[in-house]
Amino acid sequence: MQKFKVIKTDKKSKARRGILQTAHGKIQTPFFMPIATSGAVKTVTPEEVKKCGAQIILSNTYHLMLRPGMPVIKKAGGLHKFMNWSGPILTDSGGYQVFSLSKIRKIKNSGVEFQSHLDGSKHLLTPEKAIKIQETLGSDIMMVLDECPKYPVSKSYARKSMELTTTWAIRSKRAHSNKNLLFGITQGSTYKDLRIQHVRELVKIGFDGYAVGGLAVGEPVQKMYQVLDWVVPELPENKPRYLMGVGKPEQIIEAVKRGVDMFDCVIPTRNARHGTLYVWGNKLGGARAFARAWLKQGLQSTPLGGKFYQELRIKQSKYRLDIKPVDPQCNCELCQNYSRSYLRHLFMTNEPLALRLATLHNVNFYLRLMELIRKGI
Amino acid sequence: MQKFKVIKTDKKSKARRGILQTAHGKIQTPFFMPIATSGAVKTVTPEEVKKCGAQIILSNTYHLMLRPGMPVIKKAGGLHKFMNWSGPILTDSGGYQVFSLSKIRKIKNSGVEFQSHLDGSKHLLTPEKAIKIQETLGSDIMMVLDECPKYPVSKSYARKSMELTTTWAIRSKRAHSNKNLLFGITQGSTYKDLRIQHVRELVKIGFDGYAVGGLAVGEPVQKMYQVLDWVVPELPENKPRYLMGVGKPEQIIEAVKRGVDMFDCVIPTRNARHGTLYVWGNKLGGARAFARAWLKQGLQSTPLGGKFYQELRIKQSKYRLDIKPVDPQCNCELCQNYSRSYLRHLFMTNEPLALRLATLHNVNFYLRLMELIRKGI
Repeated sequence: MQKFKVIKTDKKSKARRGILQTAHGKIQTPFFMPIATSGAVKTVTPEEVKKCGAQIILSNTYHLMLRPGMPVIKKAGGLHKFMNWSGPILTDSGGYQVFSLSKIRKIKNSGVEFQSHLDGSKHLLTPEKAIKIQETLGSDIMMVLDECPKYPVSKSYARKSMELTTTWAIRSKRAHSNKNLLFGITQGSTYKDLRIQHVRELVKIGFDGYAVGGLAVGEPVQKMYQVLDWVVPELPENKPRYLMGVGKPEQIIEAVKRGVDMFDCVIPTRNARHGTLYVWGNKLGGARAFARAWLKQGLQSTPLGGKFYQELRIKQSKYRLDIKPVDPQCNCELCQNYSRSYLRHLFMTNEPLALRLATLHNVNFYLRLMELIRKGI
Repeated sequence: MQKFKVIKTDKKSKARRGILQTAHGKIQTPFFMPIATSGAVKTVTPEEVKKCGAQIILSNTYHLMLRPGMPVIKKAGGLHKFMNWSGPILTDSGGYQVFSLSKIRKIKNSGVEFQSHLDGSKHLLTPEKAIKIQETLGSDIMMVLDECPKYPVSKSYARKSMELTTTWAIRSKRAHSNKNLLFGITQGSTYKDLRIQHVRELVKIGFDGYAVGGLAVGEPVQKMYQVLDWVVPELPENKPRYLMGVGKPEQIIEAVKRGVDMFDCVIPTRNARHGTLYVWGNKLGGARAFARAWLKQGLQSTPLGGKFYQELRIKQSKYRLDIKPVDPQCNCELCQNYSRSYLRHLFMTNEPLALRLATLHNVNFYLRLMELIRKGI
C-alpha cells in the first residue's frame, strides 16, 4: 500500500503537493510541524494548535525518555493519549539532542553513551533502543538514530560519521517492528560526493521517507540550498522528503521549490516567547493577495524579492500606545481580541499570557504560510 | 435607583442572596472575584475566566498606575477594552499595595507618598487621585483609599489610622464624579469599639457598598469571624458587603453565613501556579451531593465538620503513574482532557501549560463553590 501520493507538481519548480497517510490520519504536504518537545507545544494546548491548522506535531525522544520516562508513557497508553493529541506525531530519534544537550557523550559502534542534562545519569542510546522508545511513544513517523556532525567538519570526519549513520540506519530498519512510518536521515555535511553517496545508500536500504539532516547547523543558507539541489534529485519521487530543523519563512519556500515536503522548527514558538511576531507584509497586500499572486504567477516567479512578512518586536516602546492588532490580516486569538499595546504590556509585566498569545499567533502564521504554499502549487 | 437587591435570606444564618447592578451587568451575590492584578488573570484569558463562571474580576490600581500607566489605559478606552473583558471590574484603591509592596512610604494627611517597587520612582497617592485613576480605568466598583494597618497593631495606632481613613473616605466620596459604584472600607483592627465606631462613621458618610478591611493580614481566623460578627450587624441590609482578601473555601462559607456578599483572594490562582489543586471531597459525595445536602439542611447545619474538599499537591511522586483526572467530578478543561500523570509531568518539566491548566481548575473550583453557596441559600 502506498503511504504517500504526489497529487500535483509545480510547473516552474520541483515543488509538489501530496498526501501522507499515517496511523492517525492523512496529512497534506508540504507541511510544518510545531514542536512539542516534552509532550506539549510550549504554553498552548493541543486543541489550540489544532485550531491554528496544525496537522501533525513533533516530539523529542531524548526529552521524553528522560522525563517523564517510558513507564509513564506506557501507563498512559502512548504519547497521543498522554498529551491528548489525536493527530499524527513525528518523533526524532534523540540523536540530535544527545549531541547538542548532553554533557558527556561517547560514540561507539553500538550507539551513543551520554549523560542526562537533567541529573547526570548515564544512558546508552542505540539504534534499536531509539526505535523501541519511538514505538512505545506510538509515533506515527519515527526517525532513525543518526550522528549529526557540527558545521564545519572535516571531510574525513564527515565520511566516518556518515558510514556509522548508514550502519545504524540498517539496524534501525531491522529493529522496526510496527506498521508506522520509519524515515532515514541523509548526512554528508556540505560535501557533494558524500551527500550523493549517502542518499544513495539510504535509498538502497529503503525507508518510508527521507530526511535531509545535518543542515541548519550554522552553515550559510546558500550552502543549505545547494545541498538540497544535490540530494533531492537522488530521492524517489514517491517518498516524502523532510528538511529537519528548517526554518525561516523564506527558507521554507526555497526548500519547497527544491522539492521538500516536510518541515519543523523552533523559530515560530521560540521567537514568540521572546516577543518577536510574524506579520504579513503589505507589499503583497496581505495573505490573500500573496496566495493569489503565487497561484497566478507560479511559485518560482512570485515576487519574494519584496519581503512578504515583517518581524514585529512587540517590546519596543513604539507599540506602547498602539491599539491596532498585531496583524490586522490575521485571524488568530491574539489579533482578534487584543491590541499591540496590551500584548506589549503583558510582556513588560511578565504575564505568562503574553507567551501564549504570541505563540498562537506565530504558529498560526506558519501554518497559514504552509496553506498558502499548498494553494500556490 | 437601587443598585443592590437582596432576593433571599437563609433561615438559619445571616447568609443572603442578592443581585448587584453594575455598569457592565448584573452580578449574583455572594460572588468571588478572580484576581487580574495587572489587567490579566495570570496565565489565562478573560474568555476562559468567563467560561469558568466568573461574573466579575478584580484589578489593582497600584499596579496599573505604574504599569502600563494611565496614558495607555486612556488610549485603549479604559481597562475593559484594554484587556478585552466585557463584564464588571472591581478595582482596589492602591492603598493595600502601597503598604505591602513599596519600599518607602510616608503617610501624610494629604495622602501617601511611596516609591515604586519597579523603578524607585516617587509618587503621591491621594484619595482624590485614587478615585481619578479608578474612573479612568472605568472600574464598575471603586474602593476608597484607606490605610490598612498590620496585625497586631496598638490600639492608639489603630485609632489614628482609622481616623485618617475616615477623612480620606469623605474626600473620596466628594471626588467621585461618575455613576459607577463607590465602596467604603471599614477598619479598626481587632478592637471591638473601634470596629463599631468606624463602621458607623462610614455608614453615615454613605457608600454604595461596604468592605471589611484590615482582615486576612495575619490574625487568627477566629478573630476574623469575630470582627465580622461585630461589623456586619452595623451595615445596612440593602448594601453589598465585601470581605477583602478572603480566603480559603471554608472561610468564605463562614463569612457568607455571617452576611458577607463579596470575596476576592489570590489563593486559587497562586496555589494553582504552585501545583496545589482543589478537589471536591468524597465525604459529601461530590459537588452535587454537597449542594443537595446544603439545600436540604440549611447553610448552618451543613456537615462541614468533614472536609468537603482536598488539596492535591500534583508534584508528589504518587501521581506519576496516576492516569485519573485531577478531579473526576470536575468539568474544567484540565479534568476533561488530561490526567494527573500528565499535569505532574508538565509541572516537573516547567511547561507553562501546567500553570494555566491548574489555574483554570482552581478558578473553576472557587466559582463552582460560589454557585453551590448561592444554591444553598
